[in-house]
Amino acid sequence: MAAKKEVTNGVEWRIKVADDSSEILVPEAKPARDVLLGLMFFIEGLAMKVWKFLQQAWELGVDDPRKVVHCLKVGVALTAVSLFYYMRPLYDGVGGSSMWAIMTVVVVFENTVGATLSKSLNRVCGTFLAGFLALGVHWIANQSGETFEPVIVGAAVFLLASAATFSRFIPSVKVRFDYGAMIFILTFSLVSVSGYRVDKLLDMAHQRLSTIIIGTSLCITVSMLVCPIWAGQELRSLITRNMDKLADSLEGCVNEYFQEGGSLVERNKECQKKLQGYKCVLSSKATEESMANFAQWEPAHGRFNFGHPWKQYIKIGASMRSCACCIEALNGCINSENQAPEEFKKHISNISLKVSSNSSSVIRELATTAKSMKKSSNMHCVVGEMNSAVEELRANLKSLPSLFNSPLMSEVEIHENKKIEPASRTMETMPDLLEIIPLVTSASLLIEIATRVNGIVDAVEELADLAEFETASNEKSTKNELSNHFLPDQQKDNETTKDFQPV
Amino acid sequence: MAAKKEVTNGVEWRIKVADDSSEILVPEAKPARDVLLGLMFFIEGLAMKVWKFLQQAWELGVDDPRKVVHCLKVGVALTAVSLFYYMRPLYDGVGGSSMWAIMTVVVVFENTVGATLSKSLNRVCGTFLAGFLALGVHWIANQSGETFEPVIVGAAVFLLASAATFSRFIPSVKVRFDYGAMIFILTFSLVSVSGYRVDKLLDMAHQRLSTIIIGTSLCITVSMLVCPIWAGQELRSLITRNMDKLADSLEGCVNEYFQEGGSLVERNKECQKKLQGYKCVLSSKATEESMANFAQWEPAHGRFNFGHPWKQYIKIGASMRSCACCIEALNGCINSENQAPEEFKKHISNISLKVSSNSSSVIRELATTAKSMKKSSNMHCVVGEMNSAVEELRANLKSLPSLFNSPLMSEVEIHENKKIEPASRTMETMPDLLEIIPLVTSASLLIEIATRVNGIVDAVEELADLAEFETASNEKSTKNELSNHFLPDQQKDNETTKDFQPV
Repeated sequence: MAAKKEVTNGVEWRIKVADDSSEILVPEAKPARDVLLGLMFFIEGLAMKVWKFLQQAWELGVDDPRKVVHCLKVGVALTAVSLFYYMRPLYDGVGGSSMWAIMTVVVVFENTVGATLSKSLNRVCGTFLAGFLALGVHWIANQSGETFEPVIVGAAVFLLASAATFSRFIPSVKVRFDYGAMIFILTFSLVSVSGYRVDKLLDMAHQRLSTIIIGTSLCITVSMLVCPIWAGQELRSLITRNMDKLADSLEGCVNEYFQEGGSLVERNKECQKKLQGYKCVLSSKATEESMANFAQWEPAHGRFNFGHPWKQYIKIGASMRSCACCIEALNGCINSENQAPEEFKKHISNISLKVSSNSSSVIRELATTAKSMKKSSNMHCVVGEMNSAVEELRANLKSLPSLFNSPLMSEVEIHENKKIEPASRTMETMPDLLEIIPLVTSASLLIEIATRVNGIVDAVEELADLAEFETASNEKSTKNELSNHFLPDQQKDNETTKDFQPV
Repeated sequence: MAAKKEVTNGVEWRIKVADDSSEILVPEAKPARDVLLGLMFFIEGLAMKVWKFLQQAWELGVDDPRKVVHCLKVGVALTAVSLFYYMRPLYDGVGGSSMWAIMTVVVVFENTVGATLSKSLNRVCGTFLAGFLALGVHWIANQSGETFEPVIVGAAVFLLASAATFSRFIPSVKVRFDYGAMIFILTFSLVSVSGYRVDKLLDMAHQRLSTIIIGTSLCITVSMLVCPIWAGQELRSLITRNMDKLADSLEGCVNEYFQEGGSLVERNKECQKKLQGYKCVLSSKATEESMANFAQWEPAHGRFNFGHPWKQYIKIGASMRSCACCIEALNGCINSENQAPEEFKKHISNISLKVSSNSSSVIRELATTAKSMKKSSNMHCVVGEMNSAVEELRANLKSLPSLFNSPLMSEVEIHENKKIEPASRTMETMPDLLEIIPLVTSASLLIEIATRVNGIVDAVEELADLAEFETASNEKSTKNELSNHFLPDQQKDNETTKDFQPV
């Protein structure tokens, strides 16, 4: 009631001012109603925003229930680590340092096992290294008397913190040990500076390290045992999903151009989304790289062994992006204003459709290979079909100019274009090349796309050899010989992978 | 010495085994020397690695001295915050909570002002909100008796931590408040769980919040006053640098194709690097987005006012990427095996070079506009030149087929194996379209690139209008009228920007 009165007073005051300046009589009740209305609108707007936010969250959860599971896992881990506070014997064991266990769980628990492992190991190693160094610095500072102690500690903190911060800029450190470097700076500063005030420094350091180890082990256990999300599997499914998208948009793009008589045809939303699939491929570089990085921290799981060549997936992604770039250019070409006459289109329509559908089949076959981790038995077959279709398209393009001078553009002649009378052909009736440029460009880009699809095939075959994919049952034995040639390479790769593993 | 003996024993044992099996006598001294040699090689290899690492670090520092300055800034901030431990009156003020100030500095201090501000505000708001909620939960739990206390607190931690973790998946939260959500979980868990053991909870919460505010203010002060690196300026310079790279690689790519007679000419490394510039454009999406996000947290600085339309830079980046995609396709086309005969090339060589150099000029002019933040006076002029060159290229392409039947063919005959006399030209000798396909495709892609350059021009002009770039002195007044049309849009944009600012 008091609040309402205040509002009314404020309104009265405003009315007075209005009276003074413009002398318009305003009914007393109206502004109060206006204020209430405004407040209602505001609350309504806020409620709408909150509602939309919740709706978005709900859709996200329905879309990928594993995200919800991850949240529950975090909740479980945090509640479990809280036991250190609730249970007297546990609390007596580590005391106030339980805080560090909670902090570790919050900071280290990530969505995928690889990310959690990477952060955990970084945290433990960074803490251990920094604590060790800080104790050394503290001991030296302690020996040099009370006046010099802060100076020595301060200088050490300044130098090591600067150096460690700089190391975070170096790419090789940044990719893998960024978090470790940060934890190093943190622990070193805390321990060496605390040494000035805290007496039992060694006890503190020991307690902190042990609680951090407790926290990280809890995180690792929960993330690996309860519905684990492996970065490696995520990476593979991202790549295969992107392959399917690439195949869909390539096929859709070419179909739309040749079958439906141009790009001006109304597209429905679903179809439009399918056509834009290549854009996902173009923008997934960062995700792929971080996934591959996390996957390297993961132990053997499912059908991935420890030295699985994760970096090869990045190469596959790169070759897919180069292919997607061409599809983007093709899309631009197809949507351009200048369109080739239908007659010319029809001339290469069938073969273009064949090239695009064959290329899509190849990409889908590659997706199946990556999904099943088995060398496809008919890969050579579909690649061969694609390449022969490309050759056919080349041949058709070659015969395209003969269409210009044909007297009757009847369908029969288009298909049997070599039966045109030579007499009708003169120099004066040379074709308007401009008309068929979009068509030639599209066809040429289609050929280029097929070339780049071959690049993806090479990358996936290299993966199959490096990761020793099984050969599908009806496969000829020649392939096994091929994989033996790659063995030295594979060993090298395994060694490189091991080099990067934390010791 | 003991270690050496052990090694020798091991070696002897090995020799014995060897004797048993193969009965070959091995001189006793050799293996010991081998071990020493192996050790030396190992140390040498390690030293080489460290040396390479240091070299890499040195180059990084020389390349961008601001990174070194950033590290020194972190060192200074950390040393400054350590004073809370060294100086008795300061230490007595906040006690053991000084730790939080140090932790804040380590975690919050980022390379750019915007990132530091974003993290600082996230940390302070997250801590405040979570602390407030946790105190409430603690009070409720306290009222409900000793047995229920851990249950209530545990349930609250589980629910809120899960919910906050889930919110981090929602894109709108993830982009801006990810760190805040993490700090929220951390503080809420720590405060509410500590409440079970710590008596003076309010004091602790108060001390922690004040030390965090001290730490963040120190970070913000140092990062803004000592050689500040503004995310906004970085974003702009990234965009302008990418524009220059795009222009260089477009020009270089076309020049190489037409001037030097094909792609098989040996390229030097510098030139090669220039040609690959468009790849930087293709891969800078993530950086642009995070820079634009951080820039929105920054106050007015230099010539950027508070509501600067940072999102427009993302749009410019996207239009540049679509252009770079075409350059990638063009590059593929130029490097393909099928090359057009020199004569045909020469026919459109000059005009193609003109289109590419004009397009590059337009892109460079755009870079100047973005750099100087002044509407260019001759932008219309260069765009007009580019478009007329494109028209000319179209016209030349139109006349390309006439070459097939012209006497020029004699030159072709010298190079090629078509020794056909013009008189004998019948339908069977129709031009081989296949030969000129790469040329036509390149020209067509060049036209498409010019279209997309127009897209960049539109995006930059929109930026100029939104950000109210000054008109260069010799500019006509017509442009001012144009910018007025955009005013409502700009206001809308400003409002959206403000909506995202933390309250």
